[in-house]
Amino acid sequence: MESKSEQNEWSSGVWAHLTDVRRRSPLVQCITNFVSMDLVANTLLSAGASPAMVHSVVEIPDFTPHIHALCINVGTLTPEWLPSMKAAAEVASQLGKPWVFDPAAVSCSGFRLKSCLELIGLKPTVIKGNGSEIIALSSASPGQTKGADSSHESTDAIEAAKSLALSSGAVVAVSGAVDIVTDGNEVIGVHNGTKMMQKITATGCSLAGLIAAFLAIDSSRPLEATVSAMSVFGIAGELGEAMANGPASLRMHLIDSLYGLDETTVLSRVNITRLG
Amino acid sequence: MESKSEQNEWSSGVWAHLTDVRRRSPLVQCITNFVSMDLVANTLLSAGASPAMVHSVVEIPDFTPHIHALCINVGTLTPEWLPSMKAAAEVASQLGKPWVFDPAAVSCSGFRLKSCLELIGLKPTVIKGNGSEIIALSSASPGQTKGADSSHESTDAIEAAKSLALSSGAVVAVSGAVDIVTDGNEVIGVHNGTKMMQKITATGCSLAGLIAAFLAIDSSRPLEATVSAMSVFGIAGELGEAMANGPASLRMHLIDSLYGLDETTVLSRVNITRLG
Amino acid sequence: MESKSEQNEWSSGVWAHLTDVRRRSPLVQCITNFVSMDLVANTLLSAGASPAMVHSVVEIPDFTPHIHALCINVGTLTPEWLPSMKAAAEVASQLGKPWVFDPAAVSCSGFRLKSCLELIGLKPTVIKGNGSEIIALSSASPGQTKGADSSHESTDAIEAAKSLALSSGAVVAVSGAVDIVTDGNEVIGVHNGTKMMQKITATGCSLAGLIAAFLAIDSSRPLEATVSAMSVFGIAGELGEAMANGPASLRMHLIDSLYGLDETTVLSRVNITRLG
Repeated sequence: MESKSEQNEWSSGVWAHLTDVRRRSPLVQCITNFVSMDLVANTLLSAGASPAMVHSVVEIPDFTPHIHALCINVGTLTPEWLPSMKAAAEVASQLGKPWVFDPAAVSCSGFRLKSCLELIGLKPTVIKGNGSEIIALSSASPGQTKGADSSHESTDAIEAAKSLALSSGAVVAVSGAVDIVTDGNEVIGVHNGTKMMQKITATGCSLAGLIAAFLAIDSSRPLEATVSAMSVFGIAGELGEAMANGPASLRMHLIDSLYGLDETTVLSRVNITRLG
Repeated sequence: MESKSEQNEWSSGVWAHLTDVRRRSPLVQCITNFVSMDLVANTLLSAGASPAMVHSVVEIPDFTPHIHALCINVGTLTPEWLPSMKAAAEVASQLGKPWVFDPAAVSCSGFRLKSCLELIGLKPTVIKGNGSEIIALSSASPGQTKGADSSHESTDAIEAAKSLALSSGAVVAVSGAVDIVTDGNEVIGVHNGTKMMQKITATGCSLAGLIAAFLAIDSSRPLEATVSAMSVFGIAGELGEAMANGPASLRMHLIDSLYGLDETTVLSRVNITRLG
Repeated sequence: MESKSEQNEWSSGVWAHLTDVRRRSPLVQCITNFVSMDLVANTLLSAGASPAMVHSVVEIPDFTPHIHALCINVGTLTPEWLPSMKAAAEVASQLGKPWVFDPAAVSCSGFRLKSCLELIGLKPTVIKGNGSEIIALSSASPGQTKGADSSHESTDAIEAAKSLALSSGAVVAVSGAVDIVTDGNEVIGVHNGTKMMQKITATGCSLAGLIAAFLAIDSSRPLEATVSAMSVFGIAGELGEAMANGPASLRMHLIDSLYGLDETTVLSRVNITRLG
């Protein structure tokens, strides 16, 4: 069981991160899928960050050097978009800017799996996926002795996440009933959020964008920044669901709640535990 | 006039279809326009289905064999997207998976009309459009002796729909003040829905996606599945409008209502009649 | 200070423009960015206009001659989209149809700046941007003796807007705490709107679309039509914010309010002044 003081430390860290995002308004470049662009941008704006949906390969040399963080999501990947993603990831990595990779639906084709592995080779700071995605990536990554099976149980996801973190050098975040964040050694559980959030398209993509914003203001501590972003997004979802009649009103109230989050609410609702 | 027992049969059929969609959560691939992706995905999620916005031609051989139904919409068609649509339609037709075709704004260019006719040649299970679209397609389809005129009156739309159904082999659904569904012989009218739904972009595209989900769970009865989807979407719109102050709140309440629809509400609100 | 009668003239002009948009429902082609398509379309529908998101270069010769106005926004520009934008702008200019150009994030790359200057060479009726965008364009436009500095203060924006208006022949609209509209000689200030509207993605793009709809019904008076559209959008935002708890509910209430705007509300809220 967590000590009271450890809980307090997490809570005050989450609030400090959110306050910093609001104060510094980091510029977050998002190369994301067509379905999610609207919600990702609105999530970042509500959190106080500055989103930039710039994806043309010809603009990356001029633009990407000025960003504070990058988010790449392959949800509607085509071969035409891959060079932009790689170019932006390379600039980010070379200039030491944090970037988040969201391998959305990685298993839907061989092309997508191969592309995801190539992008992971460009050293994302954080990889964020659901259990199935992380297990698929972990078992396909080089250096794996044996593929994880596909039962996708929570414990499998933890082992897959740790393994992927160690092989990739990234912090790995797994969204689920309990969100899991690991750097391969430490394993943190984020217990905020609600089940109905899965009934809104693009909430996962939006969380990836939010993680990028939090990395932007604390890039030397990617594990903590990721945990904070996941907790904040989950709390906004909890507050939203209390006012919602279904997924569409939840979506609205979630964004409103993210915008309005105050210190008392954050401190009382953060629910983070050390799992290993 | 409908007999009471025939009404009851329609009502219980609609509820049975919705229950099945919720229980089986069919995987519905959508190759739709940029404007509608968000609302189509959220409509499918609220109904209990599982949307997949996969449109790259390189992913179709791997992905499309696993879907339960397909929806194609040409609302923002470009020559680059057409091969994906054709490839997905071919896989669906070859594997006996139902697919819905939405010829959005078919008359806006010669390119679009020609593309729509080519897609219809790939044997959609259902073609869903508004009166103008169905009349345009019907008069342009091979085997027509005389083009329907463009007065778009309800009776013209019925004749055009029957004619298109017979020439294409598809069930044809015409959205309007009264929705019309025909296989070329039977003609069914769905009287659910509200006028303000037309003031929200992408409601037509979302209905097409929903029809695909209903086809997925009753592919041998495309007429009945289409009628059920149109009635369910219309009822959600009626419930939504009762709570709405304008198109944007209607959009929210429609999705919430679709998510929350219960048996009593469905049974009391289904309004379906045989028109011929 | 404005005379009472001048205020009344602006107010009745705004209401007359809105009434005309609702009555004539102009067809507005939008070649806009992926992030904003949904909100632009819904804004136009709520205002009573008819949006068409047609962007393929192969469709422009067939489609664009039938439109009443055009809106071009470069928010997610790629080299593949530029020929469509140019083709549509050329058709519009040749046929005397009004068109609005929104140079979103013009400074994010050399490619984008160059593309924007090329599009301005195709004679937009109105250029709408924020202060930074208008200043960047003004200083990069041919015939400028000295680049405006980048301090982006309100007075700088006015001078840049006047200069760009004179060099381009377009009416220039600058969104900000006070919106500014100028044809290079007259300078009008629109004081409607709220700060929180900037926390919703695509409100600027939506305003550009709305200006196009207003130009469609009064193309011989682009200054007045632009002022009216900005005032109407701002009033809808003010009404929306009075009901909102954050950016997402503001977005919903803004669209609902735009749909429901009545004469009394418009006449009492229009806040337009002559600045020069």
